[in-house]
Amino acid sequence: MQRLGPWFQRAWAALALQLLRAPRAPCTGATLLFRRVQGGLVVQPPVREFAEARLKTQLELDKEKPNFVIKTPKGTRDLSPQQMAVREKIFNAVVSCFKRHGAKGLDTPAFELKEVLMEKYGEDSKLIYDLKDQGGELLALRYDLTVPFARYLALNKIKKMKRYHIGKVWRRESPSITQGRYREFCQCDFDIAGHFDPMIPDAECLKIIYEILSALQLGEFLIKVNDRRILDGMFAVCGVPDNKFRFISASVDKLGKMSWEDVRQEMVGKMALAPEVADCIGVYIQQHGGMALVEQLLQDPKLSQNKQALEGLGDLKLLFEYLTLFGITDKISFDLSLARGLDYYTGVIYEAVLLQTPAQQGEEPLGVGSVAAGGRYDGLVGMFDPKGHKVPCVGLSIGVERIFSIVEQRMEATKKIQVTETQVLVAAAQKNFLKERMKLIAELWDAGIKAEMLYKKNPSFLTQLHYCEETGIPLVAIIGEQELKDGVIKLRSVASREEVDIKRENIVTEIQRRISES
Amino acid sequence: MQRLGPWFQRAWAALALQLLRAPRAPCTGATLLFRRVQGGLVVQPPVREFAEARLKTQLELDKEKPNFVIKTPKGTRDLSPQQMAVREKIFNAVVSCFKRHGAKGLDTPAFELKEVLMEKYGEDSKLIYDLKDQGGELLALRYDLTVPFARYLALNKIKKMKRYHIGKVWRRESPSITQGRYREFCQCDFDIAGHFDPMIPDAECLKIIYEILSALQLGEFLIKVNDRRILDGMFAVCGVPDNKFRFISASVDKLGKMSWEDVRQEMVGKMALAPEVADCIGVYIQQHGGMALVEQLLQDPKLSQNKQALEGLGDLKLLFEYLTLFGITDKISFDLSLARGLDYYTGVIYEAVLLQTPAQQGEEPLGVGSVAAGGRYDGLVGMFDPKGHKVPCVGLSIGVERIFSIVEQRMEATKKIQVTETQVLVAAAQKNFLKERMKLIAELWDAGIKAEMLYKKNPSFLTQLHYCEETGIPLVAIIGEQELKDGVIKLRSVASREEVDIKRENIVTEIQRRISES
Repeated sequence: MQRLGPWFQRAWAALALQLLRAPRAPCTGATLLFRRVQGGLVVQPPVREFAEARLKTQLELDKEKPNFVIKTPKGTRDLSPQQMAVREKIFNAVVSCFKRHGAKGLDTPAFELKEVLMEKYGEDSKLIYDLKDQGGELLALRYDLTVPFARYLALNKIKKMKRYHIGKVWRRESPSITQGRYREFCQCDFDIAGHFDPMIPDAECLKIIYEILSALQLGEFLIKVNDRRILDGMFAVCGVPDNKFRFISASVDKLGKMSWEDVRQEMVGKMALAPEVADCIGVYIQQHGGMALVEQLLQDPKLSQNKQALEGLGDLKLLFEYLTLFGITDKISFDLSLARGLDYYTGVIYEAVLLQTPAQQGEEPLGVGSVAAGGRYDGLVGMFDPKGHKVPCVGLSIGVERIFSIVEQRMEATKKIQVTETQVLVAAAQKNFLKERMKLIAELWDAGIKAEMLYKKNPSFLTQLHYCEETGIPLVAIIGEQELKDGVIKLRSVASREEVDIKRENIVTEIQRRISES
Repeated sequence: MQRLGPWFQRAWAALALQLLRAPRAPCTGATLLFRRVQGGLVVQPPVREFAEARLKTQLELDKEKPNFVIKTPKGTRDLSPQQMAVREKIFNAVVSCFKRHGAKGLDTPAFELKEVLMEKYGEDSKLIYDLKDQGGELLALRYDLTVPFARYLALNKIKKMKRYHIGKVWRRESPSITQGRYREFCQCDFDIAGHFDPMIPDAECLKIIYEILSALQLGEFLIKVNDRRILDGMFAVCGVPDNKFRFISASVDKLGKMSWEDVRQEMVGKMALAPEVADCIGVYIQQHGGMALVEQLLQDPKLSQNKQALEGLGDLKLLFEYLTLFGITDKISFDLSLARGLDYYTGVIYEAVLLQTPAQQGEEPLGVGSVAAGGRYDGLVGMFDPKGHKVPCVGLSIGVERIFSIVEQRMEATKKIQVTETQVLVAAAQKNFLKERMKLIAELWDAGIKAEMLYKKNPSFLTQLHYCEETGIPLVAIIGEQELKDGVIKLRSVASREEVDIKRENIVTEIQRRISES
């Protein structure tokens, strides 16, 4: 006891007191005692045993893992009211766009049978969170929202669907939190499943990315477009051995983050590609442009010999026609270096990046990076169907976590984030008006007005005014002796400090009028 | 091959074709072959091996667990667009009420350190989902939103907060899906943390339950109220031994589902309580009422001798005064049989139940049951604080899953659930109007109008009209040869079948006018 210092003695005394007063306490507060260690809070098993049978098993659990630090799990975080307020705005923009395009909502469980997730993510499968086998099914937390969607379609034999899904996904990545990567994060997906005429749904996906990024006012952006078949065709005509397609593809994807020289070095060195093969690839993947580049490659003597590449280029040509009709080609770039990591893409792929903008007054310079991505995956649903029946799909995912970071940073730099929507505080000017405050606030709530009061019998008037200023409540309804005598409520505007007496019976209407005008 | 029948041969042929055509396919669709078994789809490991290195590890995984049925994990389910539409309406009602009372949003990770969840739920701790130990921290999925909230307050040393949290929680219960109990379900919590004057926040929690249940129009309801201190005091004065409080409390909670005779039988038989002790309890717990009962028990010769009971009764008296000011006592019942299972409650507890209403025309009779509950837990935050500093809390949880079931059942019985919000379909009257449709729909989207078109080059006019009727789209903007010549769009009301020609340049404004009027 001595060693643990006086705070421990106080805590112990408080617990002992609680034991005496509350017969129920031993099972809750008193089973744990605390001591401070560096960097967190450590919980120790109790120093004294209690009679109840249930407690014994709890103690056994404690013995297995006696000490622990109170924190959120590695790579995860709580989202504060400020962060939640930013998220709500962004979700609203994203969901309203998805709904504008006629998507239906869908939700799937946080975990799936482990087998459902296997063989869908290539190398990244090792990042999947498994649940402990507790004598039931082998389960794992979902890694994205795409595989559960495909599983849903196959399970319910749905051949056609346009859905959106907002939900958390989990990946056991080495978290580099400075880059905004977490082990738990949110995805906002929109997908179109069904047999349709080529490139019509694909074009709509790009239109949606364009609309959302424009609405969020994140600054200049560019949507890179490519097609898996063009990549594969290019690898084939350049002479990449079949078994190296995937590795070379991963190298190609690094162009932009790395110079061509470094990418070439990786291909020739690490992957033992013949230098002339690498150079052939280099000529292609350093090109980007619009419809003109598609036309040019359709005439390319080598590439036009490859059936897959021709199919991809033909579809891209059609896509560009549709994007012209949608009026969004100004921000679309056909980029032969875009490869995308996921295994399941089969056709067109795309990725939107923010272009670096010079930092504005008071703003940190913003990082460049992918803020939306997606593509066509025609084979995934068939993997869950007993007969392999395919349901072609195309979709997109908005990189909301990165967008959240950017918007949070901006809002912190420019203005206070309003976290509650309270419109009026019901306040007392003197003591002993709790009852009147409660009666009035109930009336306001019943009229749909967002109202708060302080949970004290007699809060000081200044404390009540400060609360409004801190939290951004614009109006105060003040009850006082004089007001009660006169049958009025004083309505105060926090910003202008103007006060007007309003007849008690008109106060609800007056507040509603002020709200509707603001 | 013979044994598996012709469908297998077709599937195999399709896969073989895919292998020839798509060098990338072996890693996705072709690693799995399927055969049908009773009750689900079974996936088998490939019958042929492929060269790629990555595949090998995948095959090894397959060998561990070669066959699996495609389904959602036990006790979980997907939520269809119909269900999501119902949920959205209910969430909106709940969240708007929480915001009306000035609550801030908060989110916490889906999993916590296992130790955070231990010793908080009593017997039910065995229902916690553990994650697999993958060489990191021991993690478990959250069991409710209350313990993470308390952990958040302690970790961030927050002494005062009014927050709401909508999120999934997980419990490995034996799922009885007919009763609407799932292993994954949603909670909607509102809590007030901080040192305040007695019963003011508690009264607001009851007001919130009252407002939400009224707004959702679920029929008649009753909010039962009791206090843990009154229960404990009653047990003490009746002579229940200290170590049986918890078990007797659990029996008491069954009154209502079981008759008093059966509850008494359990106490005397299973729990070896003296018959006169059981009878003493029986006298108390069969009472319920309002302020008058509180006053009566304050004068009760036995109960008034117990300090704890007196404290609880004193607080309930204050609570009833406040509930009278809020005008909600008509649906509040002080019920001495209400006990609530969770360990962490320390004071007032409450639970709202729907009262059985006679089934209306075309409605299934609705089950009675708890649709909201909560109480005061003053010790929980202190369990996470190194010095045991307490932050008193009171809160409530809306039983949205049960509410979802009820509302879904009603909506299915009475009307079709509208799952999309699309306002207009852009249609073609003849062939070859894809470009015109795409140009028009882009204009509508850009003007914020919710619009869809079919993803076919040349959909039949009838198919387009049927789509509107199926999905509830009220307007059709029709492009045809004559319309193109005349520079107009035909605007059709699906309900009335009326059609009007609108000048092409006025179509956006006209649609917006129609929408705002509807």
